Amino acid sequence: MIDALIDKIIERKNPTVVGLDPRLDYIPAHIKKACFEEFGRTPKGAAESFLQFSKIIIDSVYDIVPAVKPQVAMFEQFGYEGLRAYIEVIEYAKFKNLIVIGDIKRSDIASTAEAYSNGHIGRVDVEGELFQVYQEDFITLNPYLGIDSIEPYKKDCKVYDKGLFILVKTSNPNSGQLQNLITDGEMLYERVGKLVSQWGEDLIGKYGYSLLGAVVGATHPEEGKRLRQLMPHTFFLVPGYGAQGATADDLKGVFDERGLGAIINSSRGIIAAYKNEKYKKDYEEKEFGQAARKAALDMKADLQGVIN
Amino acid sequence: MIDALIDKIIERKNPTVVGLDPRLDYIPAHIKKACFEEFGRTPKGAAESFLQFSKIIIDSVYDIVPAVKPQVAMFEQFGYEGLRAYIEVIEYAKFKNLIVIGDIKRSDIASTAEAYSNGHIGRVDVEGELFQVYQEDFITLNPYLGIDSIEPYKKDCKVYDKGLFILVKTSNPNSGQLQNLITDGEMLYERVGKLVSQWGEDLIGKYGYSLLGAVVGATHPEEGKRLRQLMPHTFFLVPGYGAQGATADDLKGVFDERGLGAIINSSRGIIAAYKNEKYKKDYEEKEFGQAARKAALDMKADLQGVIN
Repeated sequence: MIDALIDKIIERKNPTVVGLDPRLDYIPAHIKKACFEEFGRTPKGAAESFLQFSKIIIDSVYDIVPAVKPQVAMFEQFGYEGLRAYIEVIEYAKFKNLIVIGDIKRSDIASTAEAYSNGHIGRVDVEGELFQVYQEDFITLNPYLGIDSIEPYKKDCKVYDKGLFILVKTSNPNSGQLQNLITDGEMLYERVGKLVSQWGEDLIGKYGYSLLGAVVGATHPEEGKRLRQLMPHTFFLVPGYGAQGATADDLKGVFDERGLGAIINSSRGIIAAYKNEKYKKDYEEKEFGQAARKAALDMKADLQGVIN
Repeated sequence: MIDALIDKIIERKNPTVVGLDPRLDYIPAHIKKACFEEFGRTPKGAAESFLQFSKIIIDSVYDIVPAVKPQVAMFEQFGYEGLRAYIEVIEYAKFKNLIVIGDIKRSDIASTAEAYSNGHIGRVDVEGELFQVYQEDFITLNPYLGIDSIEPYKKDCKVYDKGLFILVKTSNPNSGQLQNLITDGEMLYERVGKLVSQWGEDLIGKYGYSLLGAVVGATHPEEGKRLRQLMPHTFFLVPGYGAQGATADDLKGVFDERGLGAIINSSRGIIAAYKNEKYKKDYEEKEFGQAARKAALDMKADLQGVIN
C-alpha cells in the first residue's frame, strides 16, 4: 500500500492528503438545512451533514490529490450514526480511487489491538465468515504501549497490504512535554523514531519505504529534518501545514532527494477554504467544493516549489 | 465522580471492576444461535450477541461490584452496529446503578480531543441542542501527546463531574520499551505519573483523590508501589490481575493505608469464568452468569485479604 500511495503521489505530482475533519461551523447552511429537515437537529442529522459535506469535498479534489484522511473523532462524537457516516466517507473515497488514511490514533494491546486491527485494516471473523468493516488503507497509531501494541496491526499490514502511521513527533504546542524528554542522550521522539524504523524493516517496498510510516509534525522543521536522516526507510505523514502554522519552507527537511518520503496533511485550509479571507471573495458558500479545489491546487503549487 | 466511585467501593467492600471485553468464543452457543438467527452470521449478529452476553454479566454482578469497564475495541470492530451495542451496554450498566469506565484509550489534540470529550463524557452541541452520546462516567486516555491532549477532557470532568484514567504504566510484556526508558534519573512512566498527578491537582475530592486517575498495571508490583508513593492523590485503575498473571499479593502496593486508592480490573477471569477449569465442574455453559458471579465473589474475597 505504501507503493500504491507513492505511485499516486508521483502520478498526481502532489504529496498532499486532504484531512476530512468536519465541524458543524464548516458545513454550509443549505446542507445543514436539508439534513436537519430530514433527520432533525440531532447527532444523526449532524452526522449526515458531515457525510454530504465530505462527499462534495471528495468530488472536488479526487483527481488532484492522492489521498484523504478522515478524522474518526469528528464522526465518533455523534455515536453510531457518526460511525456509519465515517464508514460511508471511506467507501466513497475508495470508490473515487483515493487512498484513505484513517486518523484513529488507537493504542491498545493483545486481543484488544487485534480487534481494532481486524475491524479497521484486516478482516473480522464471525464464526468463519470474514468481513471488511472500515476498509481504511492506512491508520494512525500511538506507540506508548510498545511493540506488542503494534504487532497485531503489522500482521494485517503484511497479509492485506495495508499501512500504518505511528505517532513519533506530533504537531501540537505541548508535544515536547514527553516527546522531547532526553533519554540516553537523545530525545524520546528520536528513540521512538528509531524503533518505528526497526519495526518496519521487513516491510519495505519498491521505493525503499516501509508499510510502517510515522507521523511527524511540520511545526518542528529541525526535528522533521533530523528524523528524515534517522529514518531513511520510513514514510512520513506530516500534519501542521497551513492552519497550524507551518509553511512549505518548513517542510523541506521531511522530503528525500527525490522529493518523496512524506505526505503533507491540510484539513481546515482546504475543506473550509471558502471561509478563508483568501478565497471568500471568489467563492460563495455554496461553492465550498470549488474553493476547496482551488486551495488544494494552491497547496500543490506551494509544495512543488519545495520538492523540485 | 471519583467520590462516587470510592463511595461505591466502600459500600460494596469491593475494589473490583469487571472488564466487559467479550470475544465470540466466550459467548455461549444459545446466545449466538439466537442472535445469528435474527441478524445473520454478520457483524450485526455478533454485536447483538456481545450486547446480550454483557447484559447477563451485568445482571449477575451489578449488586456486588461497583463498576464495569466495557472495552470499546471489541464493539468497534463490528462497525456502527458494534458501537450501537457499546452504547447500549453503557446505558444498561448505568440503569443498574453501576459506574462505567469506558476503555477507549484515545489520544488526540485540540478540536479532535474536544470532539472525543464531547461525545464520551461531555455534551455534543448540534446547533444549540445538547446531547449526551456515550455517557461513560470515566474514560481511559493515552498521554503521549502531552497536556494539550488532556485539557479538553479535564474541562468536561470539571463541568460534568466525570473522570479520567490516563495510561502511566501498562500491564503488557513490552510496556517497558518506552515507559521504562530513563529520563533525567527516573523512568519515563514515573515522569508521566508525576505529570498526571500535577494535572489533576485542582480536581481532588473528599477522599483525597483526583478526578484524573492513572492506569497502572499489576504485572509490575514494585512499580505499582513506587507510583502509589509518587502519586498520593491519584486513584489507580489496575489491569493485569488473574488471566494476565498478577495475584492479590502483587497488588498490596497500589492501595493506601485505608485500603483505598485503586480499583482492580478482571475481564476474562470473570466474564469467561464458566470456561475456566475452576468453575467448569459447577456451572454449565448456560449458567455463565452464575459462574461470573462466583468468580467475582472469589475475587472480592481474594482482594479483601490484601486490603484489610
